[in-house]
Amino acid sequence: MYGPGDVRVVDAPEPRIEQPTDAVLRTVVACVCGSDLHPYHSIEPSEAGRSMGHEMIGVVEEIGADVRTVTPGDVVIVPFVFSCGECEFCRAGLQTSCRFAGLSVPTGAGGAQAERRRAPFADGTLYRVDVAEDDERMPGLLTLSDVYGTGWHAAVTGGVAPGKDVVVIGDGAVGLLAVLSARQLGAERIILMGRHEARTDLGRRYGATDVVAARGEEGVAAVRELTGGFGAHVVIDAVGHLPAYEQALGAVRAGGTVTRVGVPQYADAPLQRVQFTGNVTVTGGVAPVRAYIDDLLPGVLDGTVDPGAVFDRELSLGEAADGYRLMDDRAALKVMLRP
Amino acid sequence: MYGPGDVRVVDAPEPRIEQPTDAVLRTVVACVCGSDLHPYHSIEPSEAGRSMGHEMIGVVEEIGADVRTVTPGDVVIVPFVFSCGECEFCRAGLQTSCRFAGLSVPTGAGGAQAERRRAPFADGTLYRVDVAEDDERMPGLLTLSDVYGTGWHAAVTGGVAPGKDVVVIGDGAVGLLAVLSARQLGAERIILMGRHEARTDLGRRYGATDVVAARGEEGVAAVRELTGGFGAHVVIDAVGHLPAYEQALGAVRAGGTVTRVGVPQYADAPLQRVQFTGNVTVTGGVAPVRAYIDDLLPGVLDGTVDPGAVFDRELSLGEAADGYRLMDDRAALKVMLRP
Repeated sequence: MYGPGDVRVVDAPEPRIEQPTDAVLRTVVACVCGSDLHPYHSIEPSEAGRSMGHEMIGVVEEIGADVRTVTPGDVVIVPFVFSCGECEFCRAGLQTSCRFAGLSVPTGAGGAQAERRRAPFADGTLYRVDVAEDDERMPGLLTLSDVYGTGWHAAVTGGVAPGKDVVVIGDGAVGLLAVLSARQLGAERIILMGRHEARTDLGRRYGATDVVAARGEEGVAAVRELTGGFGAHVVIDAVGHLPAYEQALGAVRAGGTVTRVGVPQYADAPLQRVQFTGNVTVTGGVAPVRAYIDDLLPGVLDGTVDPGAVFDRELSLGEAADGYRLMDDRAALKVMLRP
Repeated sequence: MYGPGDVRVVDAPEPRIEQPTDAVLRTVVACVCGSDLHPYHSIEPSEAGRSMGHEMIGVVEEIGADVRTVTPGDVVIVPFVFSCGECEFCRAGLQTSCRFAGLSVPTGAGGAQAERRRAPFADGTLYRVDVAEDDERMPGLLTLSDVYGTGWHAAVTGGVAPGKDVVVIGDGAVGLLAVLSARQLGAERIILMGRHEARTDLGRRYGATDVVAARGEEGVAAVRELTGGFGAHVVIDAVGHLPAYEQALGAVRAGGTVTRVGVPQYADAPLQRVQFTGNVTVTGGVAPVRAYIDDLLPGVLDGTVDPGAVFDRELSLGEAADGYRLMDDRAALKVMLRP
């Protein structure tokens, strides 16, 4: 990505083992993330460009001397943050706070929207899964590298449980998979706030009981009406823009929880008095998706859930620029890329 | 209070039963709260003035026709927020979000720094306690109307438990009682951030294992050093000013919790990216102290704990202006007022 709206597919140096803990992966599937649209709008133009993409299923091609848990030929899920697997936070299941944690770019590993890629900390990061490269469940497996784990993180940190009213703000892939996660955790009433009908229909399939298209004060009023005037116990912000956060604080019940998994596009959050007076908890953050694969993989493999349905378009890696454009125009929900 | 620094003791109309759910109380003890110092600095001057005070032990003198749970002659703890006792939030133990909740001023009930006072929602608010008016445990009992319950709320909402490192920012009465509460909930390492030695000494008596006088970046560095470089699992902000909040976000561990019981004196909170990246939970709020009396009263009565030690000065109600001045000058930690 060379500037706002400027995505190019170029030849890059072949990745190679640089550290004994590295692996080199060949891409099976990758995709474009809603969060990739933030730099798509606002990245500083540069001649060097930025290597993009952080969701991927790969095949291990080569491993460094210290790698023990994966071996060439393995199909692996690649969580969007690399993690050492050994430090205090990795052991606690908060791999996104690993002492060495990094997205692809800070670690110099190159993005996942590529034919091949170096994976640092292969043992702590890669998750081997016993499927063939052409497995039809590949879309669902790919969601475990980010969006399903992120939606799950929202539901878990929000404290979703049976009897809780849940609001999900945002009908992107993360929002929809937060709906699915909330349903899996036993929520009965799940109100999806979104206005793109094809997406909210998928949200209903995932378990949304109500859809609210209105936003702002009108949207908040609709949620309050659906929740006996009280607001929801848990509100999930799967957007990240300030109006969504304000909407979340309007829609949450006193004593309830707002959990954010959309990357905040604001430095300051207003409404501190509202939060304080109502004893509202604000939680969430960058999802440690590596920690959730154990829990989520079985349902994907046995077909209990179908998170892969968030992919409504498939393009080749060479068409990546079209993928960004389709998602930015909201003509596609989530675009899968294959080499 | 007629303006910043302008506290006067004046004759006011005798309170009387206005609603059938009211009681009229005669004051046994009242006090000045750290939060009273916010208007003491910044209240809009007015000719009418504002009736102050929200912490009190009283004797019931008169009750309305519908009052069932207290009777004239009863000694009662008066929580700082009135609550109906019947609505959704009262039943859930979040009386501060009662449909009718109010501090004394919004309910028109008059403040607690007075000889007599009307108490709305007597059944839902007042807590009868079987002691004589001259009981020596009165200071401890008085803390149950606000500061001990508020410190306890901080520790509970922060998730304090055995094995957790806890930081308490602020050596006022709430901060010190948050230390006591954290100790009661099993925290082993409790770091008190404060620089007033008489207060931090009391903090040590209450269970603080470490005292950090430094503030800002230096204070954060000291906390990190004491916590293996990671920061504390729980940071309690018992101040409410923005630098304390920034200090809290600096001192908290990734995946940890900042809980605020100091009323935020800021509308916007910065560092949203820091909070999000580190999966930091921000919780707390106005403490529903009514809900905690059942838990905290036995320890006060049997002497297991001594929360009343936060009162280091006693004045008459007529000397209330001196009480404000002493607390504002930090010459007194907390001033008790007796008629």
